[in-house]
Amino acid sequence: MSFSHPSVAYSREAIRHWAPILRIVAVLWMVLALFMLLPLIVLILERDPDAYAFLEAIAIVLGLSGAALAVTHRVPMELKPWQMFVLTAASWASVSLLASLPLILGAPALSLTNAVFESVSAITTTGSTVMVGIEHLSDGLKLWRGLMQWLGGIGIIVMGIAILPFLKVGGMRLFHTESSDWSEKVLPRTGGIAKATLGIYVGLSLLAMASYWLGGMQPLDAIVHGMTSLATGGFANSDTSFGAYADKPLLLWMGSFFMLCGALPFVLYIRFLRTSRAALWQDQQVRGLLKLLLAAIMVLSVWRVLQGDPWFASLTHVTFNVISVVTTTGYASDDYTLWGALPVAAFFYLTFVGGCSGSTSGGMKMFRFQIALFMLRNQLRYLIHANGVFTTRYNGQPVTSDISRGVVAFSFFFFITIAVLALSLSALGLDLVTAVTGAATAVANVGPGLGDVIGPAGNFYTLPAAAKWLLCLGMLMGRLEILTVVVLMTPMFWRR
Amino acid sequence: MSFSHPSVAYSREAIRHWAPILRIVAVLWMVLALFMLLPLIVLILERDPDAYAFLEAIAIVLGLSGAALAVTHRVPMELKPWQMFVLTAASWASVSLLASLPLILGAPALSLTNAVFESVSAITTTGSTVMVGIEHLSDGLKLWRGLMQWLGGIGIIVMGIAILPFLKVGGMRLFHTESSDWSEKVLPRTGGIAKATLGIYVGLSLLAMASYWLGGMQPLDAIVHGMTSLATGGFANSDTSFGAYADKPLLLWMGSFFMLCGALPFVLYIRFLRTSRAALWQDQQVRGLLKLLLAAIMVLSVWRVLQGDPWFASLTHVTFNVISVVTTTGYASDDYTLWGALPVAAFFYLTFVGGCSGSTSGGMKMFRFQIALFMLRNQLRYLIHANGVFTTRYNGQPVTSDISRGVVAFSFFFFITIAVLALSLSALGLDLVTAVTGAATAVANVGPGLGDVIGPAGNFYTLPAAAKWLLCLGMLMGRLEILTVVVLMTPMFWRR
Repeated sequence: MSFSHPSVAYSREAIRHWAPILRIVAVLWMVLALFMLLPLIVLILERDPDAYAFLEAIAIVLGLSGAALAVTHRVPMELKPWQMFVLTAASWASVSLLASLPLILGAPALSLTNAVFESVSAITTTGSTVMVGIEHLSDGLKLWRGLMQWLGGIGIIVMGIAILPFLKVGGMRLFHTESSDWSEKVLPRTGGIAKATLGIYVGLSLLAMASYWLGGMQPLDAIVHGMTSLATGGFANSDTSFGAYADKPLLLWMGSFFMLCGALPFVLYIRFLRTSRAALWQDQQVRGLLKLLLAAIMVLSVWRVLQGDPWFASLTHVTFNVISVVTTTGYASDDYTLWGALPVAAFFYLTFVGGCSGSTSGGMKMFRFQIALFMLRNQLRYLIHANGVFTTRYNGQPVTSDISRGVVAFSFFFFITIAVLALSLSALGLDLVTAVTGAATAVANVGPGLGDVIGPAGNFYTLPAAAKWLLCLGMLMGRLEILTVVVLMTPMFWRR
Repeated sequence: MSFSHPSVAYSREAIRHWAPILRIVAVLWMVLALFMLLPLIVLILERDPDAYAFLEAIAIVLGLSGAALAVTHRVPMELKPWQMFVLTAASWASVSLLASLPLILGAPALSLTNAVFESVSAITTTGSTVMVGIEHLSDGLKLWRGLMQWLGGIGIIVMGIAILPFLKVGGMRLFHTESSDWSEKVLPRTGGIAKATLGIYVGLSLLAMASYWLGGMQPLDAIVHGMTSLATGGFANSDTSFGAYADKPLLLWMGSFFMLCGALPFVLYIRFLRTSRAALWQDQQVRGLLKLLLAAIMVLSVWRVLQGDPWFASLTHVTFNVISVVTTTGYASDDYTLWGALPVAAFFYLTFVGGCSGSTSGGMKMFRFQIALFMLRNQLRYLIHANGVFTTRYNGQPVTSDISRGVVAFSFFFFITIAVLALSLSALGLDLVTAVTGAATAVANVGPGLGDVIGPAGNFYTLPAAAKWLLCLGMLMGRLEILTVVVLMTPMFWRR
């Protein structure tokens, strides 16, 4: 990202390479500054001194953005694939950094480490928190935490529809549609799908806010939870997460519904509204996700009822927390690590799954599990009938070896990233369960881990600073589907 | 395996299908009975009443074997691939069952569950134990525990050289040599390689026994540890495993050396002796294993020295326990779970690795990691240079997509098996660490898990019976490279 790259320092070539990237990133910074106006307005109306924090933050972000736009005035805006990789990583990293400013400048006066952890966790829609006493934050900061996740959510959808299929990362080429076919252009050719997706995201968010409000939440809580549900982010306005509504089943069921909405492919909503009501139910990925959720909810509900818990409360809390973890939202309505050995193991596995591609959720994503299962079935067939030729279709499209290889590479890199991260965390002294589940929950962008420290009843506050920075890296890598970041770490990429 | 298969019951076809399988299995039973003679002789010489247990066991095994051979007299002995799958699974399962007889009939009078767990753990060279007070067992039973592992060890080598490459399981086709190319014959065409391998196995075992004896072990201990080192089995003659020799560095270094010998490809020893002294060091798999061991030993030794432990003792114990876990032997010289957070996490990961293919070790095997890494490197290249064509060679052989797919399928099934097993164990009430590391150590055929219950200082005795049977299944599946067993579980196989 720097203009002082040794071999091309200050040359025309360097400007041609880096300037368009900086320019686009600067536009995103400006959008970020615009959204900071919302908490600012709230804080001014409430005469809360945190308003100054937002004023300062807006000034800094606008200053940086303006400077960047000024120096990149009139550069050619065509991007090559390698620039897309750099742009993607630079956008998410820099926006996360700048979004942390109000947390440093405002009343919580977080350290740089804690503020960046919180904002990376927000923008990546992970939802792990280092903040204690969230109830006592100013309304503006509560709103900002929600807004960061909400912005992250729309960023993920856009990236999943328009950028990753084009970069062929992790089998995402399967979702290469006309809207992601824009080789020589910087912005998607079709404003149509982008606008429709944005409309649906806004619409569903408003619906969630209204429902939560009608369900009994305070207006600000309804707004924040509405945003963090659709973004499958998981930030709540209480240290007990959604546990503040543990005795309000209606809100828990609403929460389950809207988290699920956030984890479905957003392009399907367009098809659902425009073409066919069956679009959602006929999609192989959606059906896979629903089947998995149903199975997990059934097994864990039966487990809890067998332990003597009342059936409706069990079903409600199991549904809420299973959907929360699988959609990678990360709300907790209860400390599910106290439900017994099977639920703990189940939540450990469910951490990895994730929702559908093209949604706001993280994790490995349902389609990769399904394609991996097809591959395994074909491999068994091959062992039995050595001379057969086996092809697979997914949602009607042939699964080419190109896509299979992408899925496999993603899966391996996903687990390698978690393993390396967990090993590094344990080198910092974290116990095995905290290290492994912390790494997994970060890379899968879920939120809570397991164990006493970072479990659903815990907080990431107590971790050493180095661990927080490592987890930030893990959250960003997970959000960018790993390979986008790994590519940048290879000498091959920079020799290109 | 049953003669009452509904569609072909008692027909000529059934006899033609199942009789040759039964006949070969019966020969293996007879070999087992022959080896029971060794402890019997020792016990008779020592006038130990356990001799009766072995007499009874020999009578039962010989009876079953003789009956099976009698009813399968003069059957055609050509085996199709599907029969090889059944034969492989049936051999390991039935031999494990029969090998447990002396443990039930003899002084320890183990329950069926405990006896079968112990013998499955022995024959698969896993080395997890449910026995307490091993020091007080009769010499015959100590010898039998060692012999079971030793027989398992040679069985694994033969299977890896002659059967799995032929069945194309898990990328093992990479090791498809003339000695495994015997489509129409029941026994390997080349007695040569089989005899040479057996000779090397016996020779190295004798060398280990002699070394241990010269190093200060009692003769029987030297014999048993010699056998269980080469078999990478890990049964010891003490409840503290190799900890009985914790203050004898010479024996620990000898142990490290012989465990490593057991984890190298046995065909390379033949080439080493007959053709080239460089054969061992030039092998890509051997070099990968040595590099990994060196890296792990260096990091953990430095860790221990930084904690203030004396350097030579640290290096000795780190080397011994790292080699023990990576080679899937499973001896422990110390409770390494007390070494701190990083070592615990490191041992968790090392549990999965395993040694080289064509050795007595278990785990995923080094070559699969290497091929997976090549695949990932190619995938990164592909993301950067979209139009390149990338091929990979392993030990000079091209890695075909056939082999890559096998490696991928194995890796996925390996982790799926561990995950399903761990989930089942947690449903029986085992805590997360015990469930996950118990499943991993069983499927990887290592031996100890982590945590208080089944860690290196623990014992599998306390687990519920159902957990023990599940772990037996896991050990057998791991030993048979997973797919060999999974194939048998598909309806497709039986419809074939």
